[in-house]
Amino acid sequence: MTNAANPKDRVLIFDTTLRDGEQCPGATMTFEEKLEIADFLDAMGVDIIEAGFPIASDGDFEAVSEIARRIKRASVAGLARAISADIARAGEAVRHAVKPRIHTFVSTSPIHLAHQMRKTEDEVIEIITKTVAQARNLVEDVEWSAMDATRTPIDYLCRATEAAIKAGATTINLPDTVGYATPDEYREMFRAVRERVPNADKAIFSVHCHNDLGLAVANSLAGIAGGARQVECTINGIGERAGNAALEEVVMALRVRGDVLPYDTGIDSTLLMRASKAVSTACSFPVQYNKAIVGRNAFAHESGIHQDGMLKHQQTYEIMTPASVGVTKTSLVMGKHSGRAAFRSKLKEMGYDLGDNQLEDAFTRFKALADRKKHVYDEDIEALVDENIASAHDRVKLVSLTVIAGTRGPQRATLKLDVDGRVSTEEAEGNGPVDAVFNAIKAIVPHEAVLELYQVHAVTEGTDAQAEVSVRLSVEGGSSVTGRGADPDTLVSSAKAYLTALNKLIARGARVHPQAAAE
Amino acid sequence: MTNAANPKDRVLIFDTTLRDGEQCPGATMTFEEKLEIADFLDAMGVDIIEAGFPIASDGDFEAVSEIARRIKRASVAGLARAISADIARAGEAVRHAVKPRIHTFVSTSPIHLAHQMRKTEDEVIEIITKTVAQARNLVEDVEWSAMDATRTPIDYLCRATEAAIKAGATTINLPDTVGYATPDEYREMFRAVRERVPNADKAIFSVHCHNDLGLAVANSLAGIAGGARQVECTINGIGERAGNAALEEVVMALRVRGDVLPYDTGIDSTLLMRASKAVSTACSFPVQYNKAIVGRNAFAHESGIHQDGMLKHQQTYEIMTPASVGVTKTSLVMGKHSGRAAFRSKLKEMGYDLGDNQLEDAFTRFKALADRKKHVYDEDIEALVDENIASAHDRVKLVSLTVIAGTRGPQRATLKLDVDGRVSTEEAEGNGPVDAVFNAIKAIVPHEAVLELYQVHAVTEGTDAQAEVSVRLSVEGGSSVTGRGADPDTLVSSAKAYLTALNKLIARGARVHPQAAAE
Repeated sequence: MTNAANPKDRVLIFDTTLRDGEQCPGATMTFEEKLEIADFLDAMGVDIIEAGFPIASDGDFEAVSEIARRIKRASVAGLARAISADIARAGEAVRHAVKPRIHTFVSTSPIHLAHQMRKTEDEVIEIITKTVAQARNLVEDVEWSAMDATRTPIDYLCRATEAAIKAGATTINLPDTVGYATPDEYREMFRAVRERVPNADKAIFSVHCHNDLGLAVANSLAGIAGGARQVECTINGIGERAGNAALEEVVMALRVRGDVLPYDTGIDSTLLMRASKAVSTACSFPVQYNKAIVGRNAFAHESGIHQDGMLKHQQTYEIMTPASVGVTKTSLVMGKHSGRAAFRSKLKEMGYDLGDNQLEDAFTRFKALADRKKHVYDEDIEALVDENIASAHDRVKLVSLTVIAGTRGPQRATLKLDVDGRVSTEEAEGNGPVDAVFNAIKAIVPHEAVLELYQVHAVTEGTDAQAEVSVRLSVEGGSSVTGRGADPDTLVSSAKAYLTALNKLIARGARVHPQAAAE
Repeated sequence: MTNAANPKDRVLIFDTTLRDGEQCPGATMTFEEKLEIADFLDAMGVDIIEAGFPIASDGDFEAVSEIARRIKRASVAGLARAISADIARAGEAVRHAVKPRIHTFVSTSPIHLAHQMRKTEDEVIEIITKTVAQARNLVEDVEWSAMDATRTPIDYLCRATEAAIKAGATTINLPDTVGYATPDEYREMFRAVRERVPNADKAIFSVHCHNDLGLAVANSLAGIAGGARQVECTINGIGERAGNAALEEVVMALRVRGDVLPYDTGIDSTLLMRASKAVSTACSFPVQYNKAIVGRNAFAHESGIHQDGMLKHQQTYEIMTPASVGVTKTSLVMGKHSGRAAFRSKLKEMGYDLGDNQLEDAFTRFKALADRKKHVYDEDIEALVDENIASAHDRVKLVSLTVIAGTRGPQRATLKLDVDGRVSTEEAEGNGPVDAVFNAIKAIVPHEAVLELYQVHAVTEGTDAQAEVSVRLSVEGGSSVTGRGADPDTLVSSAKAYLTALNKLIARGARVHPQAAAE
């Protein structure tokens, strides 16, 4: 398309999983989860990590600050409305970053100006000039976004863009905020703005697409064809409403179709599958089986015709290899005769780097699992180690649980917990066995947290699969924590997940009284 | 774009949920589920229902035949390879349809010709001529597909298309079989073929796109811009690998962007949400929260900025109304004081049409649920009624269940079942409570079916949510059945789901011996 002489242009990947992604209903992540994902994004080669919206809450501010401190390669961006206090707060949050960026935005479409902002076009230009200049005084790298750009008349969009670049913006993002554009329109918008804005060559243009009509990836690619060189996207395509363009789809489309889309990204695509799992676990959002690139069926072939073709020649039905996106076959790894050395090397291969104590603890749990379960898969080990890492400093620990359930309710749970070294037992009833278990926990450790989410996933196939349960608890003020637990017994997983979440709340100093009933 | 004088061209919707969708790993549906979905597709205004691949198995043949018999509005298509026996079988399956169609296909790309078919280009042209003519002798309406069209040199693709039309094909489908095309390429392919093939005006051209690179919807729209007037798609975008273009996304993109995409479909979009739920339930495929149009977040707004905008003016962030795709708010419907009349009218409103006995039975279950659960949501009622409908003719019924579970395993289940009117009790142990329950069922009703899938979904929010469990059993020969059960107690749901599946197997005459242990 462009640049036949210089075969591949570099396109920057701006990941907003921790901001636009985290902002969608139900996707709230904890501080620790955000750090973990930021580390992962950095390792994967993301160019800019949008870490949050610092003015939104103290939690957001803390997360952005901590990510800014620890990330050494990628730029770290904080979001700010076109308000002085927002920009100051964003500047403070990112100032320890090796490459800090402030990302400020304002609406430019008539419908937003009239109904949401109640400002004239001229007033908004003034705001842009003032706020971008303020940001540029704090950091070298300022991104400005024309919110609802795709529903903004082109003349005004050019005027606003020119003003932002003049005030010091180094990146201009023209988002399709409501997921309304078609690829042709979106490409033409970038062409027009870049042709008509006199100082357009002083900024990098950026796409930011929502998937309301299923066109987010196509629109992102069309924007690149129109001259954009930054793509804003999220892992698994999470985000407001129907979500953002999926990072993994944009990256793999550019890679697989490099012949007609001559652009490079810096992403190590073999980490895509792990990134997808990390994000879906952190926000407890399941990935659709037929999700492109990272869905569990994305590389699976069932129909006889296709299988036959695959056996004869892999390329007949595959345009990319599973390995290129980090998909390894679910492999039968070990059983109860596997030793410590094999376990250690398996963990290394899976990308875990555990200390000796953690390793020993994980190995003990692995042996216990292998005794009960015929096949131990990679996913089983993942579940077991993840739980292990989380539980190192817990004040409340599960000692034993017995549940009586069935059709003759009410269901009853007898629970023994170790709270700071003292063991207490309680019995509770409930509407269903899970409810009974949670009531028993509340009887031993009174607290005011509210259960926001309860989910069960089978980690592997079969009846003897481990069940992985996610529990999200929220406390007054709106902050929330997620806990996960895995065990072949769903009820034990439920108890473990709840206790993990509760321990996180205790560590945060929430109003939980682990001693109250332990006296 | 095209046809400024005649503002809207009609685009036909060809739904292949029951063929390409059902063919993906894990999506197998039962005979009854297929009929139900076919009825739904017809009611929604789908133009052509591809009901299956008749030669693939007797089950497929039966399903296509029965759908052909009952559907009065839509065309019913059966798939056939370019093999005489396939075409004869497809013709037999659809012959009772009001509008029967045979859909036959052959590979045209060099990679498929060389590695899968081992035929020359000339040999394939001969095959096309012969097989399309055979199909045309059986039915008036013949669709021919050039498998892997997007990787076929344009000259040969034109030659093959011309031969198919000459032999009597009335629809020419040029699929992007491996999900490889970009929108620009796909549009140009249709333009080129329609320009260069002399008899192109005698056929309707069709798009069929896979989503491997996230471009299925954009490619479908690009194909329409290139002159195609039929779109092959599936509900929720299910299908091989990353799936097909999602029907709901294509339909809503055409509707919402009618200003630049001047095409009409015959789809009643207010049924899209129910179609999505019906398909995701039938194949036990969860819909991603941020799935466009039908995901549970598709119309949800969390961030403060967006909420503020929404309150001020709905159009600031919404390009379509939830009602336009059949999304009604999850409403607090009724509690234990609701009467029979209210329950009946609620069911009507939800689209259920039950007989008196079914209604009475559902009402009894509703009262029992309302006693145990504070808030009864639409989803609770849906789960309860769906289970109710399924259980009318069961030979094996749950009488009671008691489970003892927890950390001190092995877990134990005591189960009482009514088998053809005789009650038997068994106790069994297992690795986890679910395993114990299933072992107890096996002890009472010996059978050789294998558990293929076990899934738990929370139907509504909260600890007192009903748990909905899906169980898939398969028998030798590969056929499988899915059962669902809902109850606030996960273990009871599990037992119900397993028994539902087992009853379906018994109804089919599988090797299940309900009397064996009942003696």
